[in-house]
Amino acid sequence: MEMDQNQYLERLCGAAKEASRPVARLSINERNAALRSMARRLRAEEKFILAENARDIGEAERSGQTKAFIDRLVLNHDRIEAIARSIEEIALLEDPIGKIENMRTMPSGIRVGQMRVPLGVVCVIFESRPNVTTDIAALCVKSGNACVLRGGKESIHSNMALHRVITEALDEIGLPGAAVTLIDRTDRELVPVLLKMNRHIDIVIPRGGESLIQAVVRDSTIPVIKHDKGVCHTYVDKSADAKMAVDICINAKVQRPGVCNAMETLLVHREYPHTRKLLEALVEKGVELRGCPESAAVLPGKVKAATEDDWFAEYLDLVLAVRIVGGMDEAIVHIERYGSGHSEAIVTNDYVAAESFLSRVDSAAVFVNASTRFHDGGEFGLGAEVGISTQKLHARGTMGIGGLTCLKYVVYGNGQVRS
Amino acid sequence: MEMDQNQYLERLCGAAKEASRPVARLSINERNAALRSMARRLRAEEKFILAENARDIGEAERSGQTKAFIDRLVLNHDRIEAIARSIEEIALLEDPIGKIENMRTMPSGIRVGQMRVPLGVVCVIFESRPNVTTDIAALCVKSGNACVLRGGKESIHSNMALHRVITEALDEIGLPGAAVTLIDRTDRELVPVLLKMNRHIDIVIPRGGESLIQAVVRDSTIPVIKHDKGVCHTYVDKSADAKMAVDICINAKVQRPGVCNAMETLLVHREYPHTRKLLEALVEKGVELRGCPESAAVLPGKVKAATEDDWFAEYLDLVLAVRIVGGMDEAIVHIERYGSGHSEAIVTNDYVAAESFLSRVDSAAVFVNASTRFHDGGEFGLGAEVGISTQKLHARGTMGIGGLTCLKYVVYGNGQVRS
Repeated sequence: MEMDQNQYLERLCGAAKEASRPVARLSINERNAALRSMARRLRAEEKFILAENARDIGEAERSGQTKAFIDRLVLNHDRIEAIARSIEEIALLEDPIGKIENMRTMPSGIRVGQMRVPLGVVCVIFESRPNVTTDIAALCVKSGNACVLRGGKESIHSNMALHRVITEALDEIGLPGAAVTLIDRTDRELVPVLLKMNRHIDIVIPRGGESLIQAVVRDSTIPVIKHDKGVCHTYVDKSADAKMAVDICINAKVQRPGVCNAMETLLVHREYPHTRKLLEALVEKGVELRGCPESAAVLPGKVKAATEDDWFAEYLDLVLAVRIVGGMDEAIVHIERYGSGHSEAIVTNDYVAAESFLSRVDSAAVFVNASTRFHDGGEFGLGAEVGISTQKLHARGTMGIGGLTCLKYVVYGNGQVRS
Repeated sequence: MEMDQNQYLERLCGAAKEASRPVARLSINERNAALRSMARRLRAEEKFILAENARDIGEAERSGQTKAFIDRLVLNHDRIEAIARSIEEIALLEDPIGKIENMRTMPSGIRVGQMRVPLGVVCVIFESRPNVTTDIAALCVKSGNACVLRGGKESIHSNMALHRVITEALDEIGLPGAAVTLIDRTDRELVPVLLKMNRHIDIVIPRGGESLIQAVVRDSTIPVIKHDKGVCHTYVDKSADAKMAVDICINAKVQRPGVCNAMETLLVHREYPHTRKLLEALVEKGVELRGCPESAAVLPGKVKAATEDDWFAEYLDLVLAVRIVGGMDEAIVHIERYGSGHSEAIVTNDYVAAESFLSRVDSAAVFVNASTRFHDGGEFGLGAEVGISTQKLHARGTMGIGGLTCLKYVVYGNGQVRS
């Protein structure tokens, strides 16, 4: 059985590696044509895709999945149109490939530069959101990479239908279908075997819950880019403008609480004069507060006692941990201890505090006087986002198609040898 | 026992993580002062260091280590002077930290940039070369990182002596000694436990043989930067200048055969008119040739028959695999199949061939008309070299102190919220 899985994956991933070479050689016009053809075919094949998606939904309903789960699984006319449009937007992005940076002549006479090239084969392991299939396929083709996709078994029929349409589009420009490879077997035991395919795969990106990410980090011999949880903090300094603090905290917590860049813990300076107003505004928006004793005393009866677990929590819901701190040092110690290094903000009108917070906080994105919700590829000007990396290697924070490339050295000589 | 190792490493690595915060906050003047103090103290403590080194050498001799092994272990006045000077050179390098790149104002009004910051804690696992201890300590302090060092047990007394001198220098500028942490227990079973310290360590760099590197890739939950073997190719095109081809091939093979950027396989175009002269020149320099039947026919009696293993071999010696190919396509197919993605060169006078080779070969460094021996931090203008990475993530090819940094997003707002 193990042997069999290994052979199956060796064949699939080896074919993806082979296919990565012609993909890397396509011109940007060819890559964009492939994307536009994908979008066109997705629209044309709507009926087929929806029929296959209905099979997944039927099975999910029969097996008693939650409404939220099924909602993530559902495709319909509007969602297919949105997918097609997002692919067309990727086609409009600047070519991330081919630029030569830092070209310079060395004392030996050789000219050395660094050429931006595709990574090769990108593997993405994701849960049951069929739109990830098309997203990743488009981002990889745009950046000259092949990809290996492993989706959740609950969306397998949708994924296979989308994959068929994508490979037909690749075929149109003469690319092997293996350039976008879908793992079409859904046994769970396949994943640890897949994660050992470092001969064929250059990078693996897990997209899903904490347990998936931990399993990938544990089992993978392929370099991993993690998109881990966001335990994001906002620190309200004593000099903060009262209205700005309310606006930013409400936005960071309430505007879309279920995402990784939403605020999970609020830290407030002990001498901030408007703490009660701030907490009242949050409660008014339906936010449940769990706080330290000092914050509970600010708004008696409205703040539940926080436990140690609350400081680590990624609620992804209208719940917020609150702590009163003695100043920025204490705020940073809290962030270092409990944070996940995703996104932290300070609200302040103090120049030194702003600059010091920016320098000292060791997170993927650090904000002064803006909502952590801005940590996003679109808002940061990257265009499409592959995800938000919470590790420091290669890509940190929101990762666009540039994160799917690397630099190789190119050297022009005229006969130089080393002495 | 396992528990005990875990506690021991948790304590050491946790302290390194704590120490990484004050290191990251040092000014460049303070970091450079620490380096100069290290150099000064190394010179001053020569007697102590050599006495400790003599203990390692004595044990190595008693246990019957090879002469080459002992030579790598030996310290003496000249070597300590060289170490001190190399630290002073690192002090002269430009500060890799603090620069803010790509700062721009987004439509929302926030200003977004990327600030170059230290990685945090760098772990290096190396074999028995004591100079790695000082090298890595200096490179890490320069780039604002703490480090955790694990050297071979054969050099433990030398490493502990060097480490003592380094931490005294750190103490002089008020830094905790844990900023440069040496693992002072040498049991082998410690390494897999160390490789699970991803809560405290941001990156691990194995420096040593293939088996060490494979073990690290297999066991590590910390992101790894591999410095793997170099099976480097030179392809001599039919248009190559005869003298240039000889010069480059001799340099790439003979100048220093024991290093990873030396040529291991020579590929020659079938229609290149000077193949015999080229092979003769190599034989004259004492190079043993192992070739395909066609190359053997060029120089009868002088070329051993190559086996499949020869194409994969990193000889690190005056031995060279030789293959006659039908053209560049065949050369690239050979490189893709047998190469290690380290350094490849083409010798040619054909413009299209040069540009095509540069674009198509997927190696960390690709050369036109220059020796692969140039793949080096010094020759590429990076100053000190941490190593040559053979992976594509984060750092590809020669890696300088810039490879010990990452970019975090910094955002300046004035009350913006996301709509």
